[in-house]
Amino acid sequence: SPPSQPASAPARLAVIPGDGIGPEVVSEALKVLEVASPVKLETTRYDLGAERYLATGEVLPDSVLDEIRGHDAILLGAVGGRPGDPNLPAGLLERGLLLKLRFELDHYVNLRPSKIYPGAVTPLSEAVLARGEVDFVVVREGTEGPYVGNGGALRVGTPAEIATEVSVNTAYGVERVVRDAFSRAQRRPRKKLTLVHKTNVLVHAGAVWSRIVGEVAPDFPDVTVDYLHVDAATIFLSTDPARFDVIVTDNLFGDIITDLAAAVTGGIGLAASGNINPDRTAPSMFEPVHGSAPDIAGQQKADPTATILSAALLLDHLGHADAAAAIETAVLADLSERVPGAPRRTAEVGDAIASRLS
Amino acid sequence: SPPSQPASAPARLAVIPGDGIGPEVVSEALKVLEVASPVKLETTRYDLGAERYLATGEVLPDSVLDEIRGHDAILLGAVGGRPGDPNLPAGLLERGLLLKLRFELDHYVNLRPSKIYPGAVTPLSEAVLARGEVDFVVVREGTEGPYVGNGGALRVGTPAEIATEVSVNTAYGVERVVRDAFSRAQRRPRKKLTLVHKTNVLVHAGAVWSRIVGEVAPDFPDVTVDYLHVDAATIFLSTDPARFDVIVTDNLFGDIITDLAAAVTGGIGLAASGNINPDRTAPSMFEPVHGSAPDIAGQQKADPTATILSAALLLDHLGHADAAAAIETAVLADLSERVPGAPRRTAEVGDAIASRLS
Ligand SMILES: CC(C)[C@H](C(=O)O)[C@@H](O)C(=O)O
Ligand SMILES: CC(C)[C@H](C(=O)O)[C@@H](O)C(=O)O
Repeated sequence: SPPSQPASAPARLAVIPGDGIGPEVVSEALKVLEVASPVKLETTRYDLGAERYLATGEVLPDSVLDEIRGHDAILLGAVGGRPGDPNLPAGLLERGLLLKLRFELDHYVNLRPSKIYPGAVTPLSEAVLARGEVDFVVVREGTEGPYVGNGGALRVGTPAEIATEVSVNTAYGVERVVRDAFSRAQRRPRKKLTLVHKTNVLVHAGAVWSRIVGEVAPDFPDVTVDYLHVDAATIFLSTDPARFDVIVTDNLFGDIITDLAAAVTGGIGLAASGNINPDRTAPSMFEPVHGSAPDIAGQQKADPTATILSAALLLDHLGHADAAAAIETAVLADLSERVPGAPRRTAEVGDAIASRLS
Repeated sequence: SPPSQPASAPARLAVIPGDGIGPEVVSEALKVLEVASPVKLETTRYDLGAERYLATGEVLPDSVLDEIRGHDAILLGAVGGRPGDPNLPAGLLERGLLLKLRFELDHYVNLRPSKIYPGAVTPLSEAVLARGEVDFVVVREGTEGPYVGNGGALRVGTPAEIATEVSVNTAYGVERVVRDAFSRAQRRPRKKLTLVHKTNVLVHAGAVWSRIVGEVAPDFPDVTVDYLHVDAATIFLSTDPARFDVIVTDNLFGDIITDLAAAVTGGIGLAASGNINPDRTAPSMFEPVHGSAPDIAGQQKADPTATILSAALLLDHLGHADAAAAIETAVLADLSERVPGAPRRTAEVGDAIASRLS
């Protein structure tokens, strides 16, 4: 779908560096964007995350959310405080900031491409890699499933505690993401779509996913459809990832299998993602798949490549496909020259990729 | 805990071959059990599964369940019909037979050991394998979580459909499995327990799991405890599986990560499991982790090793640790002589392992 603005207008970016390694990797992505973008970038920085919460008690004030809505896209680093910090309730930042943005801005397509780039360090054996080229994309539903925050607990902290989590799945929500996945599959050479779910156990949620995939399929007659249970999908992701083209799946299964997909295709340091609102009723948000990694924060140890590739997805979403492709080419060249066992500082990686583009 | 019968009494086994490759792999496990068991085995065969359902409409009649209760242990092959069979509603056999047995017989410890045996074919690179010996066990909760069947749907089949699945987590249910996992960790050389969950998103369920692990830990002061989000756990399972010792996790996360664990440690053909009722108020059930694989059923192509190793877990549970160890030794010897690219028939594998024991 076309961008909402003429391609020459400046792009207004909301930048949320976030927690842990977020600020470091975002700096490098901005460095690359400055060089790669064919249009002027107007960035507004939003300091949201653990530090702000611990200082002010604020997670995402409504006024800030409203301001963010006024942008063309969002670049986000990572969200999540130090695990076990007694002042940070578990999930508060994830739910109150990251997921809140995904839900409020209706990011129903959480797009996570996985490729094995030449030179990438994968944990897979030569025999597995010899099975074929690995190049697939996971379309993870982003606004429903077990992520809706629809749960609760009774008698908390007692031996009689009971806690529930409700996965909510609507035909409305499933159909829109399934259609998006089908149309992506149709635009790819192999035109294959795999639904991943657990229909043999989660029979109600599974039924709506299966039914809708079956109903939408005739509209995309050239797309081949298959199905895998999520447990079986992890087997194929680790033993034969070349078999996948487009995977469509629910929010939680997508979370799990995209980390695995990242691991097997060269590591979480390379995995990009877009939280996309295909209807463009609100800005889409681009972020690496990895988390905030507080243990290595501020040490220039994080690999900014995933964030740089997420910035490429951002440019693509804004209609600058050539600039996005140029970033990917620069990353590819950089990857092929990486020396195993000789890690570079975060800024060195950003500089190296940016200098290939200028 | 001691077996409920003197070790010399015959063991009454309920045998459920099930669907697909189930009957083939169960035959081989029985062959091995006959040779390995120090006590007489009295087996009763229950024909349950797709065939019976399609012929009679019965899944698991109450009278059959009652009979099964009267046994010392259950050996099960696999359950699940041909995917997409219009006469088999999705999940009917899984929910009505396999999960029904796990829930009714209170199999709250779903035990799934993972080892890389010498000669095993793993999809992992030499570099990953060089990181250390891989020998861990997943203690998957078996009677709660998203598996409770507590969900439903409204306006089914219409564009306004909404379907829910409720994950139920009780302090009672979590504490008993967490204690079991701690005591297993304490009996192992490395004494390490990893809780796997998604506490940053599933905050209610996550809170009860985290709290109880924290509360039980002081009773096992020599056990080291850590925590991983389920998505991160898939990364480590594929890049550094040697780091794990005992993992404790919920029913659905356990389902997903044990298939991955099986894949990375030599394939689903080797992965054994026990559905254990540690309180011995009902018989425990032993089965391979793999499914019914209808596509290769009846062709003598299935590897019975996982079922044979499950039979070893069964003997161990009945108090015959030496016989269980002997089966594992025979399997190890057989594995080390397997010729890649020269598959044997299901019965040949069973014969080879049985003959090492006699
Ligand atoms: C941080 C967390 C809430 C998030 C998620 O679970 O979606 C992350 O794991 C991801 O995949 O983007
Ligand atoms: C067949 C299915 C219901 C079962 C499960 O999900 O538990 C299987 O995948 C397993 O892991 O034993």
